[in-house]
Amino acid sequence: MILTRREFSRLAGLAAASPFVPAAHAQTGQRPIGWCVVGLGRISMDHFMPGVKMSKSGRIVALVSGHRDKAEKQAAMYGVSSNAIYKYENMDAISDNREIDAVYIALPNSMHAEYALRSLKAGKHVLCEKPMATSVADAKAMIDTSKTANRKLMIAYRCQFDPLHKKAIEMIRSGQLGQIQAIESAFGFNIVAGEWRLDRQLAGGGPLMDVGIYCLNATRYLTGEEPREIKAYSSVLDHDGRFDTVEENVSWTMKFPSGIVAACNTTYGGNMSGYFRVHGSKGSIEMLPAFNYDGMHLTGQVGRDQKIDELSPDREPIEFTRQADHFAECIWYDRTPKTPGEEGVRDTALISQIYQAAGLPGL
Amino acid sequence: MILTRREFSRLAGLAAASPFVPAAHAQTGQRPIGWCVVGLGRISMDHFMPGVKMSKSGRIVALVSGHRDKAEKQAAMYGVSSNAIYKYENMDAISDNREIDAVYIALPNSMHAEYALRSLKAGKHVLCEKPMATSVADAKAMIDTSKTANRKLMIAYRCQFDPLHKKAIEMIRSGQLGQIQAIESAFGFNIVAGEWRLDRQLAGGGPLMDVGIYCLNATRYLTGEEPREIKAYSSVLDHDGRFDTVEENVSWTMKFPSGIVAACNTTYGGNMSGYFRVHGSKGSIEMLPAFNYDGMHLTGQVGRDQKIDELSPDREPIEFTRQADHFAECIWYDRTPKTPGEEGVRDTALISQIYQAAGLPGL
Repeated sequence: MILTRREFSRLAGLAAASPFVPAAHAQTGQRPIGWCVVGLGRISMDHFMPGVKMSKSGRIVALVSGHRDKAEKQAAMYGVSSNAIYKYENMDAISDNREIDAVYIALPNSMHAEYALRSLKAGKHVLCEKPMATSVADAKAMIDTSKTANRKLMIAYRCQFDPLHKKAIEMIRSGQLGQIQAIESAFGFNIVAGEWRLDRQLAGGGPLMDVGIYCLNATRYLTGEEPREIKAYSSVLDHDGRFDTVEENVSWTMKFPSGIVAACNTTYGGNMSGYFRVHGSKGSIEMLPAFNYDGMHLTGQVGRDQKIDELSPDREPIEFTRQADHFAECIWYDRTPKTPGEEGVRDTALISQIYQAAGLPGL
Repeated sequence: MILTRREFSRLAGLAAASPFVPAAHAQTGQRPIGWCVVGLGRISMDHFMPGVKMSKSGRIVALVSGHRDKAEKQAAMYGVSSNAIYKYENMDAISDNREIDAVYIALPNSMHAEYALRSLKAGKHVLCEKPMATSVADAKAMIDTSKTANRKLMIAYRCQFDPLHKKAIEMIRSGQLGQIQAIESAFGFNIVAGEWRLDRQLAGGGPLMDVGIYCLNATRYLTGEEPREIKAYSSVLDHDGRFDTVEENVSWTMKFPSGIVAACNTTYGGNMSGYFRVHGSKGSIEMLPAFNYDGMHLTGQVGRDQKIDELSPDREPIEFTRQADHFAECIWYDRTPKTPGEEGVRDTALISQIYQAAGLPGL
């Protein structure tokens, strides 16, 4: 983080004046963000909480879970006091916990909106996992509530905080690849029966909601444009009970205002390492894998001679740390997050359009 | 080539009885196929003719060209007699040249049909470059004429004769990759102004006709299915005179009867190494590059442990040799080519569908 001397002085002054400074941020003088984690699934326990722990910008101060035992274990690991473990039923009580600045929501998709609204109404800032919501109306309500409550709302599009993704964007914006013409992107996996992801009531949809959204979001940040038109197909090949309420595959093509086209696939029925390929008049790049938690690999060719071959830097800071740091800065300095609610509502509306183009109900 | 003893004896007998046996094929006893090459562009001079020279199944015996000097040079290289060099105007005289068994047609796309018809009517078998024709009607006329003339018609889909493509097909058919769900494929390049490929009158269309056809054809031979539905976009970004009559980009998605989906791109405006990726429930493979003349690379992962990593074998026999050998066998043993006119007419009809789906005129 780069601060001007004036910003630093001002903020250091504010921080010194604040009554809630358990440990001032070493560099900024800011109070570290107190995080309340809602939902103790893999992404919280394996990625977000370790990411915050590696960060200097925040710490885990509260948990919301339906499983007291699991929550107690995690609380012990992160030094969370027992009386800062909430149940879903009584989580509105977080409004009284002044240690909590921000809430991280990592629940099944259809619960995002409810818990975001409750958190915002409790006076907390919200970082919500993607997909933002399972309906456009819910997504918009989240934005409206964040405005009314005057609290930040950010969607956890971690790839936008990844150095290699940023490098790809920079190569495109700087004109190094010339005029971009076309993009391919795909992401999927072979899902195991029984996951909440296969229940439309909880997930809102299939692989497009869960992993295809990475491809969709990537085409938008890579081009810097919003798709103008979308055509799509969906299909189910495996009639084994997994796909009774959600789709197995979606294939879609998009046309952007400049004329750039994109072709994308997503699946819950097969191995599909997430990747994107961008083709420009002067060069092309590929990132494969692109959407993993680490180990991303960017390759390409610019002109005749320049080869691109870059691996993700070492694990620290991981995307989750960078994302938490960014949100902390947004709170400290009253900035709009790089991936605000508006970014999530756009994807939600586009996913709805893709489903409708494929003959499925929209969101 | 594997022959039964009975086939061998019968064919050796036939060959011995033939008055036109300049040099019997060492293994088969068959007379090598005498090739007449129509059109002395790069694909003829750099690929097809060297491919035939490396082959034991045929030899170049005649040329048709508008450039006498160029033709004389090539004739000297291949031992073609001067009176076997024809002009386009008098090429029907090939009917009198009993050394010619087959004609290889490598002309601008819109001329394929006319020269195929003239060759078939001259009593010669025809191997025609892709795309077969610039209209479905022309493509069908080629098939009809080959039937009436009782001569073979094959479309030069060289990738279908490539060992690595065959290996990919075999991995899919054998079930090694499990249930195939989705395919991505793309192929394109940044075209230089002035090529006949940019003139709709000669080319019939843009990159879809020329290189996108590889992706389309690959999705068909990889799945073993015919796409049931197609949706597409086309676009022009570079208003520099190159794309006044043909499209710059096409992006399309297809749904096959089983439910397999495919997402494809093609361009004349940017670097786009040809490739395909196939995603199955048990594994996935990628070939990149896939549609070059050599150096293909197949990678993939089957299950947790089995890595696939295979390069094309050495240059000889190259795809062009394999293709010429196959056509020779079809002529010798009266077999239907693996890529007959019907294969070409299917792609022509599908390309027409893609154009129409993109709002362009069909073929």
